[in-house]
Amino acid sequence: MSAQSKIATHLEEQSTAQRNIGRLLVKCSDKPGIVSAVSTFLLQYEANIVESSQYSTDPEGGMFYLRIAFHLDNLLDKKEEMEEDFNNIAEQYEMDYHFSYAVELKRTAIFVSKEPYCLMELLWEWQNGDLNTDIVVVISNHEDARGMVEALGIPFHYIPANKDIRQEVEKQQVKLMEEYDVDVLVLARYMQILTPEFVSHFPNQIINIHHSFLPAFIGARPYERAFGRGVKLIGATSHYVTNDLDEGPIIEQDIERVDHRDDIVQLKKIGRTIERRVLARAVKWHLEDRVIVENNKTIVFQ
Amino acid sequence: MSAQSKIATHLEEQSTAQRNIGRLLVKCSDKPGIVSAVSTFLLQYEANIVESSQYSTDPEGGMFYLRIAFHLDNLLDKKEEMEEDFNNIAEQYEMDYHFSYAVELKRTAIFVSKEPYCLMELLWEWQNGDLNTDIVVVISNHEDARGMVEALGIPFHYIPANKDIRQEVEKQQVKLMEEYDVDVLVLARYMQILTPEFVSHFPNQIINIHHSFLPAFIGARPYERAFGRGVKLIGATSHYVTNDLDEGPIIEQDIERVDHRDDIVQLKKIGRTIERRVLARAVKWHLEDRVIVENNKTIVFQ
Amino acid sequence: MSAQSKIATHLEEQSTAQRNIGRLLVKCSDKPGIVSAVSTFLLQYEANIVESSQYSTDPEGGMFYLRIAFHLDNLLDKKEEMEEDFNNIAEQYEMDYHFSYAVELKRTAIFVSKEPYCLMELLWEWQNGDLNTDIVVVISNHEDARGMVEALGIPFHYIPANKDIRQEVEKQQVKLMEEYDVDVLVLARYMQILTPEFVSHFPNQIINIHHSFLPAFIGARPYERAFGRGVKLIGATSHYVTNDLDEGPIIEQDIERVDHRDDIVQLKKIGRTIERRVLARAVKWHLEDRVIVENNKTIVFQ
Amino acid sequence: MSAQSKIATHLEEQSTAQRNIGRLLVKCSDKPGIVSAVSTFLLQYEANIVESSQYSTDPEGGMFYLRIAFHLDNLLDKKEEMEEDFNNIAEQYEMDYHFSYAVELKRTAIFVSKEPYCLMELLWEWQNGDLNTDIVVVISNHEDARGMVEALGIPFHYIPANKDIRQEVEKQQVKLMEEYDVDVLVLARYMQILTPEFVSHFPNQIINIHHSFLPAFIGARPYERAFGRGVKLIGATSHYVTNDLDEGPIIEQDIERVDHRDDIVQLKKIGRTIERRVLARAVKWHLEDRVIVENNKTIVFQ
Repeated sequence: MSAQSKIATHLEEQSTAQRNIGRLLVKCSDKPGIVSAVSTFLLQYEANIVESSQYSTDPEGGMFYLRIAFHLDNLLDKKEEMEEDFNNIAEQYEMDYHFSYAVELKRTAIFVSKEPYCLMELLWEWQNGDLNTDIVVVISNHEDARGMVEALGIPFHYIPANKDIRQEVEKQQVKLMEEYDVDVLVLARYMQILTPEFVSHFPNQIINIHHSFLPAFIGARPYERAFGRGVKLIGATSHYVTNDLDEGPIIEQDIERVDHRDDIVQLKKIGRTIERRVLARAVKWHLEDRVIVENNKTIVFQ
Repeated sequence: MSAQSKIATHLEEQSTAQRNIGRLLVKCSDKPGIVSAVSTFLLQYEANIVESSQYSTDPEGGMFYLRIAFHLDNLLDKKEEMEEDFNNIAEQYEMDYHFSYAVELKRTAIFVSKEPYCLMELLWEWQNGDLNTDIVVVISNHEDARGMVEALGIPFHYIPANKDIRQEVEKQQVKLMEEYDVDVLVLARYMQILTPEFVSHFPNQIINIHHSFLPAFIGARPYERAFGRGVKLIGATSHYVTNDLDEGPIIEQDIERVDHRDDIVQLKKIGRTIERRVLARAVKWHLEDRVIVENNKTIVFQ
Repeated sequence: MSAQSKIATHLEEQSTAQRNIGRLLVKCSDKPGIVSAVSTFLLQYEANIVESSQYSTDPEGGMFYLRIAFHLDNLLDKKEEMEEDFNNIAEQYEMDYHFSYAVELKRTAIFVSKEPYCLMELLWEWQNGDLNTDIVVVISNHEDARGMVEALGIPFHYIPANKDIRQEVEKQQVKLMEEYDVDVLVLARYMQILTPEFVSHFPNQIINIHHSFLPAFIGARPYERAFGRGVKLIGATSHYVTNDLDEGPIIEQDIERVDHRDDIVQLKKIGRTIERRVLARAVKWHLEDRVIVENNKTIVFQ
Repeated sequence: MSAQSKIATHLEEQSTAQRNIGRLLVKCSDKPGIVSAVSTFLLQYEANIVESSQYSTDPEGGMFYLRIAFHLDNLLDKKEEMEEDFNNIAEQYEMDYHFSYAVELKRTAIFVSKEPYCLMELLWEWQNGDLNTDIVVVISNHEDARGMVEALGIPFHYIPANKDIRQEVEKQQVKLMEEYDVDVLVLARYMQILTPEFVSHFPNQIINIHHSFLPAFIGARPYERAFGRGVKLIGATSHYVTNDLDEGPIIEQDIERVDHRDDIVQLKKIGRTIERRVLARAVKWHLEDRVIVENNKTIVFQ
């Protein structure tokens, strides 16, 4: 299968359809008039609202969050002027805001260790055109995945890692992240702990998959501990990485039923299918700017 | 348990919280400026948008649907003026629209036959304050449910029914619907077929629960047929009643797993728990004006 | 609704169908020949195996668990002889075993505090004939549930409780358990902590519903903490009560999806539907002798 | 990734663990003594029962189904004698029965058309050691999948097909099935209809994936029709192929929630993940001899 030609076709189709799609994320204190101001602004530019989601924590003095996807002819020619112009509204309402453009794909790095299944799922979704991103590099502390990654024309870097050489390893990794100009870093079963130093380079940009329904079974060997506790459900959780292990903002979770007959090997097999779909969904939502982080929680505008 | 006093308390709490909550449903051809116009209108009244959901079938020349819940001090004093005022916007955009007010509870009638479980679920949710409605009457072609209904202070009417006296029966039922000034009619396992004549009185106001995942097993005895076909899932579907049996717009569906060991009796038991929750959700969404019917489909703004 | 007459009819039907149904639970070290010995034993009595489930932890030197339901004409006349006779096999294989008879209903007590929904679900399932038990008493530290319990002819005891009078309260409760000759004690949202002393009277006989997917959110206020953590799933867990709070053997768990819009009130509403079905399933399986406790885990032969 | 070496390692591990695992499937009229006879037979051979599942349609005069997995030292040396010996019991109880051996892998052929995702899932599960089979050939009416199939060392045959040359095509396919000595034929989104003639060669050996929750949306374009009907769930069904289109015995089904925002493209994307897991489960159960077909239904001993 020629992945490249398939992706080329996909990007072409996409660029026709999505060339003029912009997205606006807004966060501010809730006040009357925000939706009116934003929608009137877009109207003046003759932008058509394609999708709009909002959430107020409390109509009386809470926070307000908004995601709008809009279509605007010749968007790329107008975007600079529009962004500058929006500044006025943003100042008036003291907004945090962010414009993005469907055609400007985020650049994704994937970190993986020995087990390739989450990586494979992401590559599969990407080849199918379901992950709108450039996967610019895969980094691993094992050689196992090199073949399947390079077959798709993606650079693969092998960086052996263990806790004694962590600092040195992370220095190399950060350097690669800069060289490849990475926007999103996905830990697809990367089994090394990252230092606060490393994490601080990528706030709310590192997406991890943890193999339990957090906050149950934080830390190592969750399937073994799920087996020991005799739970009747096992799960997986995708979250942004912070400096507190497995405590970052949760993006997505899912579970499957298990029973007494399922030993640890079986739990891991079932768990793999959960991990694959949970991580793929979380990454997809992040790439489409559907996730807003607030304190230690996420708002996901599906 | 004094249901009345409980409900009284609940209504009181609710009226404090919800006295000033209004809802606006809009449907029209998609054009630039709708959201701007509506949100600017609400801003002029100093209404605060509490919840907003929208859906466009196609940004280029499709349909546009909007549900807004808003908070406005002294809403009930201002609503007439506001509704009249909104007319201008509505004409400009050729909108179908509808204002409703949380405090003006819809009046619900429930029809039931012999099996009471769906009725019980609705009464239970209602007693818990999870169904914001006045249940004004229960009508049955059996006496079984009289006790539990009257214990809650709800009028119960026994109208024996069979297909030979259908016209006569429906005449009585329509008369009761008028007397009780009913807005919503829930068929909670009412096992009589309704005539087109009857249905035409209540367009998109009659909610039924069908005991299969439609369009599988349309018609009678779905559990028996599910057993015969050897399906591995059974389901239930709540839909608006139209003149085509089990063909009306679907509001909600759900399923449970079954296996070869489940005989028809067991399928019915499992099915009961599905029917209960599917019907309760559909009724709840209808009561909160979350459902828009378009052709033979629904838009549900959860 | 005349619950009594309904239950009477149900029991009658049941007694015809189930008068001759026995169940045998076996636990022992796995050795060749167990199934052969047990099935040959039943054959000699001309018993017909209706249902049979088994589980080996490890065919080489692990544990073996067996549940057999069998039909035997005139079972009640033969059971004493049969049980005595079985002793030989049991000794040979060093079995723990237990015979029970469908017609000898377990005697259930339900403890409840202020929120009645789990109690209502159990009563509802019981009235439908889906819980084969005698509900012999309901005990509460609030008066709220008295009406609905007594309406079904079930004795209701109000015993005010708080941590200062715990010992005194439990003394009364144990006395009632003895008076009513209780086999199973269901904590249907009973919000008082039980002492080790109390628990020791009822090993693997007290079934609790905890309002989280354990081991997440052990202890108080799980919905508040689930909200705080920003989980995307909430759950409920039914387990046997041991002296370690929320650490007993898990019988059943289930979850529902939630999202950022769900506040604590909403989480509790959604949670109620999970708690109801999880507890009902766990109690049902216990009553049908489908649950074997081993160390801190359960084998559930569904 | 060297798939071959991985598979080699996997088979080696497996052969150590599973060399001595046999399975016995039994079907007969229910009579007292069957379990006793079979378990005593296995005991005489000093076989240890590892897993046992049974099902009676009706203890009084119904059918009886049994699946036993057993461990027996030097199984392969003894199996012939054992099978011959079992004949006596089989005759006595008029059993249909079948012995199989974990180490004798079934030989699987996969048919695929343009869309490769179900094929990929099967290959992925197989590489992970989760499908215990030899995938001996892939046949397609398109060239798309050749690369990924041949990369794993599996023969790939391109046979263009359309309804005008059906007979000719099927002749070639049957010939290949014979050459490759195929036991199981998986239609992993093979979009050509098979003739009764072809199907008759492989009774209960052809496994198909249909992209709806049958019996809803039998036939072509189920996602389009699901969209048209406005269902709130979409599903997939894996079943044995018979001469009645989409009417064969169902092995497994599953669903996902959808809503009004999901257009046909989106339904297909969601559907793909359902199809992948439903087909993988069905094939796995078939390969482990967990599925018994009776009339038009299946008993699945999970």
